Amino acid sequence: MATIKDVAREAGVSIATVSRVINKSPKASKASVESVTKAMTQLGYRPNAAAKALVSQSSNTIGVLVSDVSDPFFGTLVKSVDSVAHEHGKHILIGNGYHDPEQERQAIELLINNRCEALVIHSKGLSDAELLGYAKEVKGLVIINRHIAEIAERCISLDNYKGAYLATEYLIRHGHKKIACVASSHNIEDSNQRVEGYLAALRENNISLPDNYIEYGEPDSDGGEVAMTNLLTKSVDITAVVAYNDYMAAGALSVLDENGLKVPEQISMMGFDDGLIARYVSPRLTTIRYPIAMMAERAAHLALNLAKAEQTSSDAMVFTPTLVRRNSVEKVSN
Amino acid sequence: MATIKDVAREAGVSIATVSRVINKSPKASKASVESVTKAMTQLGYRPNAAAKALVSQSSNTIGVLVSDVSDPFFGTLVKSVDSVAHEHGKHILIGNGYHDPEQERQAIELLINNRCEALVIHSKGLSDAELLGYAKEVKGLVIINRHIAEIAERCISLDNYKGAYLATEYLIRHGHKKIACVASSHNIEDSNQRVEGYLAALRENNISLPDNYIEYGEPDSDGGEVAMTNLLTKSVDITAVVAYNDYMAAGALSVLDENGLKVPEQISMMGFDDGLIARYVSPRLTTIRYPIAMMAERAAHLALNLAKAEQTSSDAMVFTPTLVRRNSVEKVSN
Repeated sequence: MATIKDVAREAGVSIATVSRVINKSPKASKASVESVTKAMTQLGYRPNAAAKALVSQSSNTIGVLVSDVSDPFFGTLVKSVDSVAHEHGKHILIGNGYHDPEQERQAIELLINNRCEALVIHSKGLSDAELLGYAKEVKGLVIINRHIAEIAERCISLDNYKGAYLATEYLIRHGHKKIACVASSHNIEDSNQRVEGYLAALRENNISLPDNYIEYGEPDSDGGEVAMTNLLTKSVDITAVVAYNDYMAAGALSVLDENGLKVPEQISMMGFDDGLIARYVSPRLTTIRYPIAMMAERAAHLALNLAKAEQTSSDAMVFTPTLVRRNSVEKVSN
Repeated sequence: MATIKDVAREAGVSIATVSRVINKSPKASKASVESVTKAMTQLGYRPNAAAKALVSQSSNTIGVLVSDVSDPFFGTLVKSVDSVAHEHGKHILIGNGYHDPEQERQAIELLINNRCEALVIHSKGLSDAELLGYAKEVKGLVIINRHIAEIAERCISLDNYKGAYLATEYLIRHGHKKIACVASSHNIEDSNQRVEGYLAALRENNISLPDNYIEYGEPDSDGGEVAMTNLLTKSVDITAVVAYNDYMAAGALSVLDENGLKVPEQISMMGFDDGLIARYVSPRLTTIRYPIAMMAERAAHLALNLAKAEQTSSDAMVFTPTLVRRNSVEKVSN
């Protein structure tokens, strides 16, 4: 690969002149711009991003840690950060952490070692303490989908409690009282907050249900199938289900279908996320919208501002979920 | 941020010694390893990836161009490349091209300027000539999902013709003769090859259908709705549909459902891709599997080998789609 030296030789100018042309210095003469540009084209020379990064101590890169980029939820997150990066003439480096502490740690180390000036971190595996350490080290680090009190001004999160409350209250307003909760077995704050929101909505509407109305499973469609099957097997008397997310709702729907139970005529179903599949399952899912694209955009802007130590806007840090009405909820029939 | 100079001062050693410790040189004494490591920790110093890249003229990075990372098809592609990168202690940079020539060009330039040693390129916007230019410049460049004869040994592609042939033939074997094709209106080779495969299967089974059995739309669920609606409006007499992809099949399914036509009892439906949604629509889609994860893995290995000018394996370059049987196809009823 051609070097700056080769270009200088080919153009018959000094290396400093080539450097001036590359960096668009006003001191570069028209003649030298022409000869250097010609030499660069001839030799296939490309100004070296690594060299620029070394000088500026910045790679002009936003690092993003997600759980798994092939999940459309995280794909959407990554796409939003990429759009913001693009607007600012920057690009992104991504890491997959799979909610595993060791993999998350490795990915963050890699992003930092590559001099990402801004970081948008979706971490569920690492402790608050460890994330605080990274936050201290990298001033452009922003946490998404998690709240850490000590750095609240750098955490973009969703009000999960309110989302589950909304979902449950919506069913109650449709006359439902026997509402099961298909919850996530992952021990992360999202799971706990959503169960809390469900329980609060019941409590405030004077509905009291036994513990067996809550069933747990992996937060995917298989987990939804397991939890729904358990509810049916234990003969829990239900007219509606609040699911942890759309995947679990989809799994629950397929178990109900296989067992001849009609949704929404016999059982109503609420999802959570408003992800890709919510519009494809049958019936289309009434669900809670997780505004991940908007949140990721906000996180990316915040990370860039923090990296430059600029004043940040006073926009929301905690986003509010909203209800999306489709076809999986109906007035209670009995 | 601390520099190598700061570390040398703190540790009371020379910069060269620090460098030896960082690069794990056997010449570094045990005492200097200890004092330098301690100083690095104290100062929060991190060996600079940009500096390493400058020396090695490589960023240790695989660049990936996809259309849109929030589409799970491309998310899966990116994840596979990332896994291979990870195995080799490398990481990835991604660009979104949105099938647009200018955006694809910009993204590729960015990846090259960042010294990506290996590139996996999914391009539908750029001409063969332009891609050949990039392939000449970057020896570790591999094209995925596209065949360019001049660099056939660097192109990983799917036999789209065969996929559509398989889908159509499967319907014919179930007694269908009136088979519509819901095709993509995008003028890319995938679209044309799949229509060719559909037509060939009909021809070789002595089935002749008028032109209006093919309807076009955008390759998403809205496009599938449009194409299916057109088929119904024009009173085309059909018992089965071959769709360009699962999204179009899903759109077509919802139009059939709204019009009281039962799948598969009255109309059979074939998808293509076996993407995320194929398992969530109702009925579950019988479809053609696009082995994108496997293809992307192969592309990443090939790109790394080419970058190192190593012997490449003689594994397949053109992958073969297979049929996935679910619930959307039945024997013809009349």
